[in-house]
Amino acid sequence: MGIPEADRHVLHTTLGGINIVKTINTRRLLIAAFVGVAMLTAALVHAADPLPSWNDGPVKQEILEFVKATTDESRPTFVPPLERIATFDNDGTLWPSHPMYTQLAFALDRIKMLAPQHPEWKDKQPFKAVLDNDMKTLAAAGEKGLVELVMASHAGMTTAEFEKIVTDWFKTAKHPRFKRPYTELAYQPMVELLEYLRANGFKTYIVSGGGIEFMRPMTEAVYGIPPEQVIGSSIETKYEMQDGKPVLMRLPKVHFIDDKAGKPVGINEFIGRRPVAAFGNSDGDRQMLEWTGAGKGARLMMLVFHDDAKREYAYGPANGLPDTKFGTFSQSLMDEAKKKGWVVISMKDDWKRVFSFEE
Amino acid sequence: MGIPEADRHVLHTTLGGINIVKTINTRRLLIAAFVGVAMLTAALVHAADPLPSWNDGPVKQEILEFVKATTDESRPTFVPPLERIATFDNDGTLWPSHPMYTQLAFALDRIKMLAPQHPEWKDKQPFKAVLDNDMKTLAAAGEKGLVELVMASHAGMTTAEFEKIVTDWFKTAKHPRFKRPYTELAYQPMVELLEYLRANGFKTYIVSGGGIEFMRPMTEAVYGIPPEQVIGSSIETKYEMQDGKPVLMRLPKVHFIDDKAGKPVGINEFIGRRPVAAFGNSDGDRQMLEWTGAGKGARLMMLVFHDDAKREYAYGPANGLPDTKFGTFSQSLMDEAKKKGWVVISMKDDWKRVFSFEE
Repeated sequence: MGIPEADRHVLHTTLGGINIVKTINTRRLLIAAFVGVAMLTAALVHAADPLPSWNDGPVKQEILEFVKATTDESRPTFVPPLERIATFDNDGTLWPSHPMYTQLAFALDRIKMLAPQHPEWKDKQPFKAVLDNDMKTLAAAGEKGLVELVMASHAGMTTAEFEKIVTDWFKTAKHPRFKRPYTELAYQPMVELLEYLRANGFKTYIVSGGGIEFMRPMTEAVYGIPPEQVIGSSIETKYEMQDGKPVLMRLPKVHFIDDKAGKPVGINEFIGRRPVAAFGNSDGDRQMLEWTGAGKGARLMMLVFHDDAKREYAYGPANGLPDTKFGTFSQSLMDEAKKKGWVVISMKDDWKRVFSFEE
Repeated sequence: MGIPEADRHVLHTTLGGINIVKTINTRRLLIAAFVGVAMLTAALVHAADPLPSWNDGPVKQEILEFVKATTDESRPTFVPPLERIATFDNDGTLWPSHPMYTQLAFALDRIKMLAPQHPEWKDKQPFKAVLDNDMKTLAAAGEKGLVELVMASHAGMTTAEFEKIVTDWFKTAKHPRFKRPYTELAYQPMVELLEYLRANGFKTYIVSGGGIEFMRPMTEAVYGIPPEQVIGSSIETKYEMQDGKPVLMRLPKVHFIDDKAGKPVGINEFIGRRPVAAFGNSDGDRQMLEWTGAGKGARLMMLVFHDDAKREYAYGPANGLPDTKFGTFSQSLMDEAKKKGWVVISMKDDWKRVFSFEE
């Protein structure tokens, strides 16, 4: 699969040529080179199927058509590169949120480890449920309960210490069903979608109800999303000097909850632009999709629907699937999706494979 | 100054060549083209003085040396491109903060316009001072007073409405001394510094005590900094439906003050990485520089010192210059700068010109 000798020569001459003329008009050459890269990028995108893990069908078609509509300068739906913002929920959209949120699994481990220093947790929910391994009570506590556990168990250290704790946990923790590190559980079709959008000039963001500092240590490696493009819930931090060195101490106080109506707020605060594409999977993403859809021009709103108990999980309660506390997809969300033309991705029908490790 | 005929031909052949071989190995060609762009960027940077508005001397040298140290892969101080974060204060660092903060000038105009609807302002500071044109009392209210004025006068509309108000104001408002739109008052040496850093793979951010939504409408045009790279103070916003369309309402409640110890907090919240370079001009930037300087490896911390009454303004109170409420540079900040090796930029000595419109 190498480059044929003749073509390699052309390329070589070119780079040599650039070198020779560099003192003459580098700005024009630079522009020319950028044009070349743009052409190559376009060529790369068209060369092969950019979404090999998606089954052919209307959902895949909808994605391809959206990218064409927003990147073809000759079309009225063209979106300038700087405005190509795409936001993705994380749990249940980019990786599993079952049997529980990954961050909850992390929190449980932390809570159990810290329990000896907190005797009061024995009689206080949701801590008691954690220590009793009472998953039913925990699930009933929902996202709010998770936030409470996170805030209580994730504070009292510096941001640098917390980053190390999270990084170390990801190295050893495994998903109970798939028996693999959580960092290997990104949905392969969504990873391809992220890459496809980026190859077409989109800036991809995570906008999650999860903790911003829990996600950041892994998003670059797992999704190709750098920390500055991760928006999430946060606790307050305080700048202080420790032995003459500045640190940021994590305080047990909620700063911002990036969920439901908080998602458009977070997007506006962090990005300052309205996304042109948004991807979610639950009632927590409804407002993000509404906010995205209310903008002018071409828009793409999609919801991952978990209807694949065999390869992953099946829950709703939309379409009569069992209800869940970890990523509820209500019938009313399904109704709004239909009414507003949001695309519902059937994990079972639209994804050729779910994880990269599948055959 | 065109490209000579022969070289133009080489370039033309190249782009044609790329076109021809695009189906063969686009990935390798893409990498080759990126290498080409990197070479050209390097060539461009070396071709001419990247900082023509800076006088030759130790300060300019310090900048050039820092960029070499962080971008030369063979040196132990090399910083990977994704970690090249540079943060800039805005008022007094990138444009004037005298005779008052630009946002204060905007707030005064708004307060006066809204006064008929707020009779209580006649007897309440700092509003009374605004309506009385009592600049001395206003100055004494300082940054805190500014925030109060901003919060009171900038709320009660949607984010989209506010953006329009700000954009319209920038179109007509003029600086009282320079008689030009504020958007023409960016310090030319700092604009060159921003461009030079970006040309070397740095991501440039604004980290200002000013309102995030006041700055965003102009930062891209004035500094080349997109809205998502602007960090600032903010008021709370609330997602709600108006006539079936989602809006974000601006509430008269402080959400975050991005000043002093708030700057490292804001940087951590928005970027999630420690900057390798930070630029400020006042006591409000001290913690940002401390936080930046506490990281490992090559660092660049700089403070613009306003000692040029002729071309701009001269204030301190460091070095015996008159004190100010708009960008205090205290003697203790000057002492810390000397102790920690932060570079103090003398506007008078280090800048060949201050504004782009100077001869």
